[in-house]
Amino acid sequence: MTQKIFGHQNPDTDTVTSALVAADIEAQLGNDAKAYRLGEISSETAYALEYFGVEAPALLNEVGSGDEVILVDHNEKQQSAPGIENATITKVFDHHRIANFETEGPLYYRAEPVGCTATILNKVYKEKNLTISKESAGLMLSAIISDTLLFKSPTTTEEDIDAAAELKDIAGVDLETYGLEMLKAGASTSDKSAEQLITGDAKTFDIGEKSVRIAQVNVVDVDEVFARREEIEIAINEEIKRDGYDLFTLIVTDILNSNSKVLALGPEFSSVERAFDVALDQNTAVLEGVVSRKKQVVPNITKALSDL
Amino acid sequence: MTQKIFGHQNPDTDTVTSALVAADIEAQLGNDAKAYRLGEISSETAYALEYFGVEAPALLNEVGSGDEVILVDHNEKQQSAPGIENATITKVFDHHRIANFETEGPLYYRAEPVGCTATILNKVYKEKNLTISKESAGLMLSAIISDTLLFKSPTTTEEDIDAAAELKDIAGVDLETYGLEMLKAGASTSDKSAEQLITGDAKTFDIGEKSVRIAQVNVVDVDEVFARREEIEIAINEEIKRDGYDLFTLIVTDILNSNSKVLALGPEFSSVERAFDVALDQNTAVLEGVVSRKKQVVPNITKALSDL
Repeated sequence: MTQKIFGHQNPDTDTVTSALVAADIEAQLGNDAKAYRLGEISSETAYALEYFGVEAPALLNEVGSGDEVILVDHNEKQQSAPGIENATITKVFDHHRIANFETEGPLYYRAEPVGCTATILNKVYKEKNLTISKESAGLMLSAIISDTLLFKSPTTTEEDIDAAAELKDIAGVDLETYGLEMLKAGASTSDKSAEQLITGDAKTFDIGEKSVRIAQVNVVDVDEVFARREEIEIAINEEIKRDGYDLFTLIVTDILNSNSKVLALGPEFSSVERAFDVALDQNTAVLEGVVSRKKQVVPNITKALSDL
Repeated sequence: MTQKIFGHQNPDTDTVTSALVAADIEAQLGNDAKAYRLGEISSETAYALEYFGVEAPALLNEVGSGDEVILVDHNEKQQSAPGIENATITKVFDHHRIANFETEGPLYYRAEPVGCTATILNKVYKEKNLTISKESAGLMLSAIISDTLLFKSPTTTEEDIDAAAELKDIAGVDLETYGLEMLKAGASTSDKSAEQLITGDAKTFDIGEKSVRIAQVNVVDVDEVFARREEIEIAINEEIKRDGYDLFTLIVTDILNSNSKVLALGPEFSSVERAFDVALDQNTAVLEGVVSRKKQVVPNITKALSDL
């Protein structure tokens, strides 16, 4: 049976390329496996795939009881393919916490607290003495650049930096030049609707009794987004009304200067002021040095909501 | 902070030695960690520790919110140390399914579907270019022999066999001779009470609506156990009455001939007859070729109870 390999919904560069790279590892190990994606490819990911001449994986809508699957870059059921609870998970490669995950039998599970799934896959190649092609190196490098924002995110570890240094040589690119071009390719917002901006990379967090939605968009021109503030606020307020969020924040991250500007709406908007010691002006504030949702935004908002 | 490393409750040889071996790996990586055990050492484990001149780890009664812990040979909360839900789990080395396990943050998780945790630890030594001492080799070899019953259990994989072949040379022992002596050291039943026999290695399984308790004891003299059948039945019936089991089976496994004799009591006793196509005589039956609870007993009884 051909095993299906895929990452999380709302696929980002690490999730898409890790599925492709894991499929290459399985092929070299003599196993029958194929990479898939659970949603549309972002313009950043499209840039990386095109640069290294690799086709995007096929779209997968659901899995079922007959399927054997390999998960990359996620493990929580609600982030995975519909029907995942009926499939047999044989392997996982991931760099997130483990939650909402259970198997009937033993499996291969490889997680490490590093910045990117590709950093782990690069190790697996070496541990098993497999060959890293120029294409695989380019895909893994792209994933590391994407997840760490060219090493500016506080999620970056020494292992990510070392892996990127190895992979850039195999891929034959200049790290800074390629990295900035790839990030910029994903950072254009003029072609995106307000709905796309607030749903493209959004996650919901239950913090105490409060439901908090945190959307993030990486850009090179922050002002380009905030010129459309009123249109975006209408879209956010519709989501708040429909889904009952206590707080909705859009984090617009300047990938060149490693800052963010936040737009905060909802009954608990003032928690953002306490979280980052800022005053909101027209519902917005600049967050100096903030680029990571996982390491900076979520912990600070959690603390602000808990201190009430 | 010194991290605490430990395996599951009712510790067996793989759980105790893997805690000691993982502590050696952490020490060689420059990390501060100490091995513990959650219960009494079995006579089999004591034989292995004494043979290789290694002290048993200290007893650990509970962990708390200040603790950082590394789990070996298990992950499910109910098999772990009391208070585990308050501790921070930084690493896991395991060869079981994943269930009842959740973390707040990312962690190192290394599981593979092999016969023994030690087989995975042996890989980790090699991947990280660490030194395997004679003592560590002896402990890992003992764990593999114990979990695979000298490769006679259907849980055995090629990787376990290969690891044992490497480790016996470093440990400087004859595999068959040492293995049989170690298994025999743990197989004496004359010094155990009926309660010890039915609780020493017992697990409860919820199968459909039924609660099934499956105890296993490894022996070289099956008759020695069944000479005490009436005494054992009284102990089992007390457990059935107290805990409401629908089925209680004691699997007495002949480690030299790779067979088992089962004692089955409780309302659903006849499911054992269907499961193995045998007729119970004095509540007992010989199960030819059956040695593994995980791979043989549980699946067959599950099927028999589902076919009703």
